[in-house]
Amino acid sequence: MIELSNRKVGLIGNGSWATAIAKMLSKNLETFNWWVKDEYVKESIEKNHHNPNYLTDVEFNPEKLNISTNINEVVSNSDIIFLVVPSIYVENCLSKLTISLKDKFVVTSIKGIIPNHYKAVGQYLVDEFNIKEEQLGVVSGPCHAEEVALERLSYLTIAALDEFKAKTVADCLACNFINTKISNDIFGTEYGAILKNIYAVAAGIAHGLGYGDNFHAVLMSNAIREMNDILKQVNKTKRQINDSAYLGDLLVTGYSNFSRNRTFGNMIGKGYSVQSVIMEMNMVAEGYYATKGVAILNEGYKIKAPIIHAVYSILYEGKNAGKTMKELSMKLD
Amino acid sequence: MIELSNRKVGLIGNGSWATAIAKMLSKNLETFNWWVKDEYVKESIEKNHHNPNYLTDVEFNPEKLNISTNINEVVSNSDIIFLVVPSIYVENCLSKLTISLKDKFVVTSIKGIIPNHYKAVGQYLVDEFNIKEEQLGVVSGPCHAEEVALERLSYLTIAALDEFKAKTVADCLACNFINTKISNDIFGTEYGAILKNIYAVAAGIAHGLGYGDNFHAVLMSNAIREMNDILKQVNKTKRQINDSAYLGDLLVTGYSNFSRNRTFGNMIGKGYSVQSVIMEMNMVAEGYYATKGVAILNEGYKIKAPIIHAVYSILYEGKNAGKTMKELSMKLD
Repeated sequence: MIELSNRKVGLIGNGSWATAIAKMLSKNLETFNWWVKDEYVKESIEKNHHNPNYLTDVEFNPEKLNISTNINEVVSNSDIIFLVVPSIYVENCLSKLTISLKDKFVVTSIKGIIPNHYKAVGQYLVDEFNIKEEQLGVVSGPCHAEEVALERLSYLTIAALDEFKAKTVADCLACNFINTKISNDIFGTEYGAILKNIYAVAAGIAHGLGYGDNFHAVLMSNAIREMNDILKQVNKTKRQINDSAYLGDLLVTGYSNFSRNRTFGNMIGKGYSVQSVIMEMNMVAEGYYATKGVAILNEGYKIKAPIIHAVYSILYEGKNAGKTMKELSMKLD
Repeated sequence: MIELSNRKVGLIGNGSWATAIAKMLSKNLETFNWWVKDEYVKESIEKNHHNPNYLTDVEFNPEKLNISTNINEVVSNSDIIFLVVPSIYVENCLSKLTISLKDKFVVTSIKGIIPNHYKAVGQYLVDEFNIKEEQLGVVSGPCHAEEVALERLSYLTIAALDEFKAKTVADCLACNFINTKISNDIFGTEYGAILKNIYAVAAGIAHGLGYGDNFHAVLMSNAIREMNDILKQVNKTKRQINDSAYLGDLLVTGYSNFSRNRTFGNMIGKGYSVQSVIMEMNMVAEGYYATKGVAILNEGYKIKAPIIHAVYSILYEGKNAGKTMKELSMKLD
């Protein structure tokens, strides 16, 4: 197995959360490899010292960065790889990979389901790239990237089966504004982060329909119980569902007015069609795809998950949002 | 024992939450007795059909109301008594009571500690008015009174040792915009509602000091675990801490910008002294008194409650808010 303490680290992704991770890595590492999609982004970071598109106030020291648009170059030079691209781009991004991942430790921080595969990223990597569970790490919030940019105190949970590996990853990220905690619940941590986006969509729909703060609190309290039921099926490890990685992550998204998932739901609640919201937002909220993937997975588990079922009915079965939310409200307590 | 199905109901209190309860009672009862403090409030409701000071948009049908400023008249004519006055006024309000409570069912909905006694209201009634635990009911949110006025869907939990009594009280309150749930955890429900105000003060202090949403989510996730630890000591009944009466109630207060407790904490975090905040707000947040009462009670239980301890240090021991919150942040996860 690889010796993680060497810390040859690579980062794949150039969105806002990847840029936040890059900021943390810069605090702890002499140098790291960074795959970005476009030559223009690479040049901009190297010349102007910041990502031209996301968290533009975060300044990088280019001497610390080996930036490349060649994913094979970044992967082959790294032992620990942070995979931080939106779930809908993962398949395309990794399609260019010709280097084997079998000696790598792959840390994902992606809160979505791989489209068409209906799998969380960890399971997708295990199934499609033949890596073992021991080679997987997961980083989870509660953590808005924007607050990392502002250096506001935030907490991350790093999950891996092996404690030493989790700690090594934590050491790559911890700094004066990042506290870290380790866990061995890789699939639960990843799946919880996916589920919370669906609950944020539900919160947005309710808000768009005119439900208030009292209902929102009830919805979130039911959501964390529903998440717990689902995670018990996904991975039977012992977990405290009120840990920050689960409940905290749900709250930071479910209560954020800036959450894309909540905004997406809000527009649905106000009566826009799914297609028009996608056009209007010019991007798709992770929660939209996650809803379908999770609904399909839940069917296999035969879990009662009324909130996710309601969101699925509204987004994918053309059910009336007002009527569906009213029916859901009778099931909550 | 009294036959609750007769539903001779009295309400004591004329603040915003009491007015919200009055609105619910009006929906379900032919008539009820209502004690208000001032003759002016009684006349205003009778003539103008609304409380002149709180939830002024809520219209009452005066034919349903027997309003009185004489607490003995209201208590003697009622079997079920809703006691809904701020905790700091409870002692004074009940000091005029000469009628015995021994045949009454007393439902409290007061989220504070009785000053000088350092007791939650339920325990205070048991100790000072010789009523039995069987005669106690508790009504808890998550529920902003303002949203009840707007008829936005809200959920209440009604706790009583006897299921039939809890259901009878629930029947007095349930309506098209109020869903109810019953519980037998009278002391836990009441104490949770008190604790959440202290956590809202903590959230306010953090906000005032410049901590962001990521930290807030971690604070709330630690708060519900701390609340669970404390409630286990207060009352060892089996409870699901993520039920709406506990977690939901914490969230609606901890995330509300309109919460007086959060506003109080926010000003402390911004550097105002406790005395100047009390003068500025022209009223005292329940969480301020609750902090002292709970800190004293916790000492007896020997519970580690770092969040409450931090708030106590800031409010009562003159500790620096920034330094104390920084120390607390190292204990959270």
